[in-house]
Amino acid sequence: MLVPAACSLIYGEDDHWVFVVSAFLTTSFGFALEKLTRTSDESEEFERKEGFFIASLIWITAGIFGAIPYILSGALKNPIDALFESISGFTTTGASVIKDVEILSHGVLFWRNFTQWLGGMGIIVLGIAILPRLAVGGMQLMSLEAPGPTTEKLTPRIAETAKKLWGVYLMLSGLQILLLFLAGMPLFDSVVHMFGTMSTGGYSIKNLSIGAYGSPLIDAIIIAFMFIAGMNFVLHYWLFKGDYKRLLSDSELRFFFILCLGAIGFMSLELWLRMYPSFLEALRFASFQVVSIVTTTGFATANFDVWPPFSKWLLVILMFIGGCAGSTSGAIKNIRIMILFKKGFNEIYKLIYPKAVLPIRLGKKAASEEVISSVTGFFLLYLLIFLIASLLIMADGVPIITTISACASTLGNVGPGLGEVGPVLNYSGLSRFSKIIFSLLMLLGRLELYTMLVLFIPLFWKR
Amino acid sequence: MLVPAACSLIYGEDDHWVFVVSAFLTTSFGFALEKLTRTSDESEEFERKEGFFIASLIWITAGIFGAIPYILSGALKNPIDALFESISGFTTTGASVIKDVEILSHGVLFWRNFTQWLGGMGIIVLGIAILPRLAVGGMQLMSLEAPGPTTEKLTPRIAETAKKLWGVYLMLSGLQILLLFLAGMPLFDSVVHMFGTMSTGGYSIKNLSIGAYGSPLIDAIIIAFMFIAGMNFVLHYWLFKGDYKRLLSDSELRFFFILCLGAIGFMSLELWLRMYPSFLEALRFASFQVVSIVTTTGFATANFDVWPPFSKWLLVILMFIGGCAGSTSGAIKNIRIMILFKKGFNEIYKLIYPKAVLPIRLGKKAASEEVISSVTGFFLLYLLIFLIASLLIMADGVPIITTISACASTLGNVGPGLGEVGPVLNYSGLSRFSKIIFSLLMLLGRLELYTMLVLFIPLFWKR
Repeated sequence: MLVPAACSLIYGEDDHWVFVVSAFLTTSFGFALEKLTRTSDESEEFERKEGFFIASLIWITAGIFGAIPYILSGALKNPIDALFESISGFTTTGASVIKDVEILSHGVLFWRNFTQWLGGMGIIVLGIAILPRLAVGGMQLMSLEAPGPTTEKLTPRIAETAKKLWGVYLMLSGLQILLLFLAGMPLFDSVVHMFGTMSTGGYSIKNLSIGAYGSPLIDAIIIAFMFIAGMNFVLHYWLFKGDYKRLLSDSELRFFFILCLGAIGFMSLELWLRMYPSFLEALRFASFQVVSIVTTTGFATANFDVWPPFSKWLLVILMFIGGCAGSTSGAIKNIRIMILFKKGFNEIYKLIYPKAVLPIRLGKKAASEEVISSVTGFFLLYLLIFLIASLLIMADGVPIITTISACASTLGNVGPGLGEVGPVLNYSGLSRFSKIIFSLLMLLGRLELYTMLVLFIPLFWKR
Repeated sequence: MLVPAACSLIYGEDDHWVFVVSAFLTTSFGFALEKLTRTSDESEEFERKEGFFIASLIWITAGIFGAIPYILSGALKNPIDALFESISGFTTTGASVIKDVEILSHGVLFWRNFTQWLGGMGIIVLGIAILPRLAVGGMQLMSLEAPGPTTEKLTPRIAETAKKLWGVYLMLSGLQILLLFLAGMPLFDSVVHMFGTMSTGGYSIKNLSIGAYGSPLIDAIIIAFMFIAGMNFVLHYWLFKGDYKRLLSDSELRFFFILCLGAIGFMSLELWLRMYPSFLEALRFASFQVVSIVTTTGFATANFDVWPPFSKWLLVILMFIGGCAGSTSGAIKNIRIMILFKKGFNEIYKLIYPKAVLPIRLGKKAASEEVISSVTGFFLLYLLIFLIASLLIMADGVPIITTISACASTLGNVGPGLGEVGPVLNYSGLSRFSKIIFSLLMLLGRLELYTMLVLFIPLFWKR
């Protein structure tokens, strides 16, 4: 919080006290909590259950304290709105309830995007170092695909893994700022948009998002870095170490790349035939939007809510898919989609050869029955939560397309949706009830469902 | 085809030749086929592969020859339209491309609904006697739940099972005609609407469907028989034999009943608050529509396309669920939904006790891993086919809500959808491309996906 305070001072704005007070409140609470909960054995390893509890609590607490600057600065007066904006930040969703972001101070804008970048740092470590060890929703298969810094079994190694991954995150972040600045984006804009890109968060400081710059070069840089942020960071780590082979042999990355190309191809075709006069223009907007949505970033260069049905629906489907495991992106993720695809097709073959054993392969290794079971369970719960949430939001009177897209978007940590929550509008017009549901969806999606859901099971709390 | 010919004669209409010619063409083809394919060993049992092939071929052939009367009578001039209407009939879907059904002759109207009733007869036998033996999409669990006439393993017994089930079907059909007639519906209308109800087909001879009669008593009778048709016919068989216990102990039926009650409750509430002045009126229309859609019948007593979002979306979700296995209804079916639910929740428990063995129980018995795998595979393919079809239809320029509902409706063999295919409109306004896709969806859904899909695998055709 002292970073946006400094930012506020640099730009000579008078709301630096907001961040100083917020920092003081947060730090005080932290120290008090530490005093109260300190145990004699500091080196204690954490248990399975504690792992779930800690992961959930981190995002909830960050959401609560992160909301303070919005309230103190007057950017969002209602606590539910402030909490929504803060949770949307830390979960790297990018759904917003601020009607006009361009009137906000540099400090608040910096804070808003900085929460996403911090959230992204947390997600990489959660996704690569913690959840696979807790076997959440088939995340254990991560180590199957990319035996990078994840293979170590000991908990103290989490800190080491985190440092390695954050090093990669920092280097890529620095590179993106440099490239955006060289492409003509002002320095402040470059920094905050890097925050939104590397975290696949998607908050912008412009009401028209990246579309406000109208620069194909900036579009291209952001497309590239959204894609990079949607890749498994373990692969980036090995790339920095000089190991190109892992990148080329990664079947999830190949699937992700083909998915993006396919979606861009079909969408460009429809946009060219039904929307834009030239194919190149259609290709430019389709490329940006496909990569922005599938990586669950949520930036926009066009008002895709007015696009024809095929393109809009394809974007909604991509909201469910998301990027790669071990990236900062949300949603179901490509590796799970691959397993689900193979699972469905396997059953057709089983009808012809009922006794055949047909393993589901990822790269060279076969996924265990346990992993497949976890992945299908995850998918079923994902759909169930989506359906229940969509019924609740519609009971609140929100139209069908707005609801479907908004639920898919918040659960997948994307950000914008269609209709009333389209790219040129946002979540500000919804009721408080709907905002609370969407905040919950963002947390559930970000924590791979299970991490939060286990907390609601009475069995979890038993010794 | 001679039955509608007789019907045409009774009403003194001059199109009886249509059905005589159609019958002649169909019979000639049949005889020719028999001559050409006769084998020396008539008693030969059919193989697995042949089972799939025969089941698929029956519905495709019925669809083709059933289209002849529409073309000859001039009711539908385009062959694709006639094929759509005929496939919609035999698959007991009830999606129509006839703009005004009230101008059609009694013969054609009789034929149109008679195809549904015949389709329903076929489905019961396919669903109870054939597919469980082929282990299609977890249908083998049928015998797990209701060890009725299905447990016999020998293929010649299929004929015997069929006779028993058809006896039940005929008795229930007779009873419904009687009740509808007593409730004041003309005899012809009673017969053809029975055809549409017992088969969960939903073709009506009125443009406003059952709503045209405006009678709460008729509504109630049809609700009751739609529900009956959505139940497992093995249970009806045992009920006729005097065994009430199987009915009460059937967990799928309990789930189905609670699902209907829950959906009716919530929908009535929204319709009362947002649509109708009295709760009773809301309850009447909600009850009819919920049961009509969840049993995949598709009759309507109100234009539900103008209902508020929650009710409309709930109807779309019900289109995916469908009735019970072993009924004439389509879609995923309750027993599979139950397994999928339990599977999803099991995974949460597994996170707390990673090594626990948690069987999925249906009633008293546990479903085998094989069944669970088949069911999840079926569900994944169902969704995949829905998504691919929806993208194809939208690429054809059809709006999002129309497409989603129409794909769910045809794949689930329901009939009407929302928007341009809403209950007071129908599929006549769509392009030929869309009609072909929807015809394929009806066939795929009716044949539990796999039965048709295996035909497209090269491996299937190898010796």
